Amino acid sequence: MYRSHTCGELRKAHINSEVTLSGWVQKVRDKGFMVWVDLRDRYGIAQLIFDEERTPKEVLETAQRLGREFVIKVDGTVIERESKNSNIPTGEIEVLVKNITVLNKSITPPFTIENETDGGEDLRMKYRYLDIRRNPVKNSLIFRHKVGIEVRNYLSNEGFVEIETPYLIKSTPEGARDFVVPSRMNEGEFYALPQSPQTFKQLLMVGGMDKYFQIVKCFRDEDLRADRQPEFTQIDCEMAFVEQEDILNVFEGLTRHLLKEIKEIEIGGFPRMTYDEAMKKYGNDKPDIRFGMEFGELNAVAQHKDFKVFNDAELVVGIAIPGAANYTRKEIDKLIDWVKRPQIGALGMVYVKCNEDGSYKSSVDKFYDQDDLKKWAEATGAKTGDLICVLSGPTHKTRTQLSALRMEMAERLGLRNPNEFAPLWVVDFPLLEWDEETSRYHAMHHPFTSPKPEDIKLLDTDPGSVRANAYDLVLNGNEIGGGSIRIFDKDLQALMFKHLGFTEDEAKAQFGFLMDAFQYGAPPHGGLAFGFDRLVAILGGQETIRDFIAFPKNNAGRDVMIDAPSKIDNEQLDELHIKLNI
Amino acid sequence: MYRSHTCGELRKAHINSEVTLSGWVQKVRDKGFMVWVDLRDRYGIAQLIFDEERTPKEVLETAQRLGREFVIKVDGTVIERESKNSNIPTGEIEVLVKNITVLNKSITPPFTIENETDGGEDLRMKYRYLDIRRNPVKNSLIFRHKVGIEVRNYLSNEGFVEIETPYLIKSTPEGARDFVVPSRMNEGEFYALPQSPQTFKQLLMVGGMDKYFQIVKCFRDEDLRADRQPEFTQIDCEMAFVEQEDILNVFEGLTRHLLKEIKEIEIGGFPRMTYDEAMKKYGNDKPDIRFGMEFGELNAVAQHKDFKVFNDAELVVGIAIPGAANYTRKEIDKLIDWVKRPQIGALGMVYVKCNEDGSYKSSVDKFYDQDDLKKWAEATGAKTGDLICVLSGPTHKTRTQLSALRMEMAERLGLRNPNEFAPLWVVDFPLLEWDEETSRYHAMHHPFTSPKPEDIKLLDTDPGSVRANAYDLVLNGNEIGGGSIRIFDKDLQALMFKHLGFTEDEAKAQFGFLMDAFQYGAPPHGGLAFGFDRLVAILGGQETIRDFIAFPKNNAGRDVMIDAPSKIDNEQLDELHIKLNI
Repeated sequence: MYRSHTCGELRKAHINSEVTLSGWVQKVRDKGFMVWVDLRDRYGIAQLIFDEERTPKEVLETAQRLGREFVIKVDGTVIERESKNSNIPTGEIEVLVKNITVLNKSITPPFTIENETDGGEDLRMKYRYLDIRRNPVKNSLIFRHKVGIEVRNYLSNEGFVEIETPYLIKSTPEGARDFVVPSRMNEGEFYALPQSPQTFKQLLMVGGMDKYFQIVKCFRDEDLRADRQPEFTQIDCEMAFVEQEDILNVFEGLTRHLLKEIKEIEIGGFPRMTYDEAMKKYGNDKPDIRFGMEFGELNAVAQHKDFKVFNDAELVVGIAIPGAANYTRKEIDKLIDWVKRPQIGALGMVYVKCNEDGSYKSSVDKFYDQDDLKKWAEATGAKTGDLICVLSGPTHKTRTQLSALRMEMAERLGLRNPNEFAPLWVVDFPLLEWDEETSRYHAMHHPFTSPKPEDIKLLDTDPGSVRANAYDLVLNGNEIGGGSIRIFDKDLQALMFKHLGFTEDEAKAQFGFLMDAFQYGAPPHGGLAFGFDRLVAILGGQETIRDFIAFPKNNAGRDVMIDAPSKIDNEQLDELHIKLNI
Repeated sequence: MYRSHTCGELRKAHINSEVTLSGWVQKVRDKGFMVWVDLRDRYGIAQLIFDEERTPKEVLETAQRLGREFVIKVDGTVIERESKNSNIPTGEIEVLVKNITVLNKSITPPFTIENETDGGEDLRMKYRYLDIRRNPVKNSLIFRHKVGIEVRNYLSNEGFVEIETPYLIKSTPEGARDFVVPSRMNEGEFYALPQSPQTFKQLLMVGGMDKYFQIVKCFRDEDLRADRQPEFTQIDCEMAFVEQEDILNVFEGLTRHLLKEIKEIEIGGFPRMTYDEAMKKYGNDKPDIRFGMEFGELNAVAQHKDFKVFNDAELVVGIAIPGAANYTRKEIDKLIDWVKRPQIGALGMVYVKCNEDGSYKSSVDKFYDQDDLKKWAEATGAKTGDLICVLSGPTHKTRTQLSALRMEMAERLGLRNPNEFAPLWVVDFPLLEWDEETSRYHAMHHPFTSPKPEDIKLLDTDPGSVRANAYDLVLNGNEIGGGSIRIFDKDLQALMFKHLGFTEDEAKAQFGFLMDAFQYGAPPHGGLAFGFDRLVAILGGQETIRDFIAFPKNNAGRDVMIDAPSKIDNEQLDELHIKLNI
């Protein structure tokens, strides 16, 4: 037997018990006649004590030779500590050791196994198995597990059935790039790994499984931005015989359940906002509504004077930064530099200080009088002591820039409290978006999303204005889920493919099986997918997903720990009927 | 709103309620003045009634034009049926329809959507979404979901953490063939899909996550035998600071929990048997112990006469087939033909009838007298009325042949009751097995399995006799799980790799990361994996897994529904730095 107890569970009540513990040596304090060892396992730390008087000589000597991260097993008696440590749950006791066995030695680890480690990101990833010994990573993984269990039990209780869809499927050029898998048994052919189980879950609806879910890995071969992974996990759901409202209710219920069970936070009905409204008020389709700084559009009150920059602009728009009127000239210049960085791309920024005495001081006093500026303050909701920041230019671009500034200022002002949760449904997304590169419309969500019936007539005349029955769930400024009501009519689906630039043959080759299935009585259906990695990270109070994934890949898609991907044998290539082309 | 109720839930208590139902048209009975429609959804069937007197004319006419599998929505009133149907839960009521909407039409399905369908396997697979509408498939998928939920909750309550390990990993030529994934971002390199998360779960143990599990897809590019899938699902588990006994206890507990919760069957402690014993008694390392017919070895009582066939054989072994003494000569000849089929490969079979009068009649009466045959009956446990079947030859081959006969006879005699559950641990597997093809030893389980300490010294002299700390869980003659205590010492692991024919460089290239990890304090650990597909099928009372998988592949590894694998674009190949070699 390796242990009678874990290192984290011993308390005063265990005093005088004989125990066996196993774990890792966290720390050794050797005073010669007395040695203390902090022994660590997944559950906590227990202090071991060895001394000249009470410990057999060879046991004490073994303790003196222990190094960090040695794996040991000890037998001993739980005794009361002389100097208690109220910082740890086991701080009232220690274990007087009688026997010790070194189960395994350790060479010096490349970084310290502490909450705050001296190891950088690269080193931590290479030795991820050591990183996982650290509380922050360990606890994140346990937290992820808990969220997963809650999700499954909630949906299962709501009548959803988890159904595993296949991983070896068919490549479809639409959307992101597929990872593909050469088939040995089918010469010259490839499977693809799913970017999502989209078509399969729709087929399950055709199959009558009216409430489906799955927590499932998905794959996208994209150039990785920070905090994206080539393989990621989705909570994937679909329902039949439902309208948008039914779906929003179920997944609002799920999210509320998670917040309650996991975070002990009770939240009422989630607010809803159309895509247009979100863009107008926050310049962003996933606004963080934990704080204000709503956009005030200023065209009506800023384009009547001789300020050519504003007069030429499609949009003049500002936000009021709370309490920032006392920024120095230098601080404001730095802010202007910040919005002019290439990542943001503004050409400049106009500001207005809302002074304590009720007057305004702006960078455009030459053009605008106090009455003008008062109207700007009204439009942006600025109060005494605030700083109004104004950007101008093409509508979409300017909104995006101002949104970036809004988020940055909220971050700096500490308004993005990770322990506050502000969910929001964004609805009525556009069906299509224009792609500059290919000069054609793409499906904003995916080609199976249904247009709003009243907008179908606009598909020919004004495709960009067609709204979809599509929705996103936003949490604290992050899109954590998105979905839509699907097309379930074969002819409408064919029309959509046509508008997305598929020839009939292409549509048939790629999605023929779905079109076929629609001939046999497809029910109305819709669904949604949550990004599980991000959901867990946000519930865990963080915005980066990496520590919530046991073995993440780096930005080049490499697993630096196992050194994958790697070369394979020529023999293997031959069997797969491929050769390298490099 | 598409429905106020499901089709399966209406009862007498709903009489006079106004309801809205949606579903598929199962059947239409049209008497002209009156039409009945069976409406089906996931939850059951409701009978709709339309008649000239009470139903609006156009609604009745619509009902008369309905075809099988049309999707409709109806509003109506629940009324009591005149002629009740006690075969279905909704048999006391019907719905008098006021409004009907055809949500979608259906062309005639290629097979009937009935419990017993007229569709063959191929057709059912091509139109799997229609097959899933049938109760047997639908119920199997729901059953699978329930088993999954129970597994997760049980293990979670036992302190196990479900941790997702990566799908894009590194190819290792050991074991079965890998599916590989060319990397676009890392020219000339490939990921592999995991055959199991083996090394990752071991790294999690090094990382201190002492109780890990995962229900996870695994991949093997093997030539598919019947009822094998290239992608399959495992319940994968690993524990640290444990001995074999701890692991057996936990997973015996899990299996007992599943039998109790899912099947309402209470089972006590599982019997255990060594590999050697299983081979000796049943000729099989996964014996079905729901019935007897244990092997009786007859060398001692059959090699003392002039029967050369037996005298030359390494093993003479028999089983007693209950109640088969009255088989006719013709029946016995058919049995002899059966064991001589190339799939079984016996050269012949000797039989002994145990007559009602206590005498014996055998096919070798020329060589053996009644006393001899009595001893055979004792050795095989044959009773009056039984038929003893005896095979002889090389030990392993003969056992395998007799095992096949034993299973066949049990099947014919109806001894393999799918509602009886007989679990069994088989322990002390050999560490290595000889591979004729490559003329070297292979790991029977995998290269990380620890030999029994007392057998390590035999590695050099008699590798085939080294026993491993390896175990299988057998249920009703099927291996549903297997595992082992792992090597956690770097030097012993290196020794194992050497014995398996790895050079130092090969071991380093493929498993260097694991050997590295073992330098930093690896704890003693072990684990096990359950084949989830098979476990679910057996619990569901079946032996084929296909109906418990939503979208299975055929024996050529094809998904005939979506037609995958398939060709991909040259552009895609170029991006992946590969070309076809066909």
